[in-house]
Amino acid sequence: MTVTGNVSGADGAVEVLPTHESLALLRESPVGRLAVVVEGRPDIFPVNHVVDHGTVVFRTARGAKFWGAAGLPVAFEVDGYDASSGHAWSVVVHGRGEVLIRSDDVLEAMELPIFPWQSGVKPEFVRIVPDEITGRRFAVPGGARHQSGSQH
Amino acid sequence: MTVTGNVSGADGAVEVLPTHESLALLRESPVGRLAVVVEGRPDIFPVNHVVDHGTVVFRTARGAKFWGAAGLPVAFEVDGYDASSGHAWSVVVHGRGEVLIRSDDVLEAMELPIFPWQSGVKPEFVRIVPDEITGRRFAVPGGARHQSGSQH
Repeated sequence: MTVTGNVSGADGAVEVLPTHESLALLRESPVGRLAVVVEGRPDIFPVNHVVDHGTVVFRTARGAKFWGAAGLPVAFEVDGYDASSGHAWSVVVHGRGEVLIRSDDVLEAMELPIFPWQSGVKPEFVRIVPDEITGRRFAVPGGARHQSGSQH
Repeated sequence: MTVTGNVSGADGAVEVLPTHESLALLRESPVGRLAVVVEGRPDIFPVNHVVDHGTVVFRTARGAKFWGAAGLPVAFEVDGYDASSGHAWSVVVHGRGEVLIRSDDVLEAMELPIFPWQSGVKPEFVRIVPDEITGRRFAVPGGARHQSGSQH
C-alpha cells in the first residue's frame, strides 16, 4: 500500500491503493456506475457487475448502455465509506467495453454470479477490459453527513 | 408517483419517480458521481454535492473534473438501496456544468453546506443546470448480495 501523502493540498491526504486492493473493492461492491459517451455527451448508469479475471462483466439489454459501451471507451466506478475509520474510498476503471459474442465466452459468462440490480431481459454481456485501475482512500471531513444519507 | 409497469420485461417493474421525489433523493444523498467527457472518453468522479434551487452544486480543484464539466454537458448520478423494502433507486441528472465566476454567485455558493468528500483545496464551484432529471425505483432480485457489499 502506497501512501502518497498530501497530493491535494490542505489536510486531504490521499492514499493510492495497490491494484490487488482496488480489484478486491471492485469485487466486494454490489453495484457500480458505468459512464459512457452517447452522441458526444456523458451518460451514467448503475449496474451490477462481477470481476472476472481482472475484468468487469455486466449484463444489459440493447439500450443506450449497451451501445455506449460496445467496443468503446468506458469508465466504471465503485465507492464506499468505512464508518469505523471515517475513510471513504473509490475505485475507477478506465477501459473498453467488449461485447461477448462467441458462444463459449457467453456460456462462460452465464456461469458468473451476476445478479442484475434491476430485473428484466438482459441478454447481452459486456466485458470491460481495463487500461487502468485507480483506487484511492481518504479521510472524509464531512463523515457525519456521509453517514446521515439514505442507506446504500 | 407514476408506476410505469413492466418497462424492462420479465419481472423488472420500474417505477418512474416524480421530479420532486428525485430532487429529494438527490438532496439526501451524501455523495454522487459526476460523468464527463474528456478528450472523447468518459470519465467519472465521486463528488459531494448540494441541491440548490433545483440545481446541483459541487466544489472542485482545476483538474480533469473541472475542465470536463466547465460549460459542457455532464451527467450526475446518485443511487441507494432501501433494505426494508428490498428496493433500489437511482436518480440521473443530465445537464450542463456552469462555473460560478461572478463574485456574488461564489459568495452565495460558499454559504451552501458543501462538505467535500475529500479534503484539499477546491476553490472552484460548478453548478449543474439540469436539462432532465430521471428517477427510478425497482425491486432488487439480488437484494441479499446488495446488502452484503461493503458499507457505503
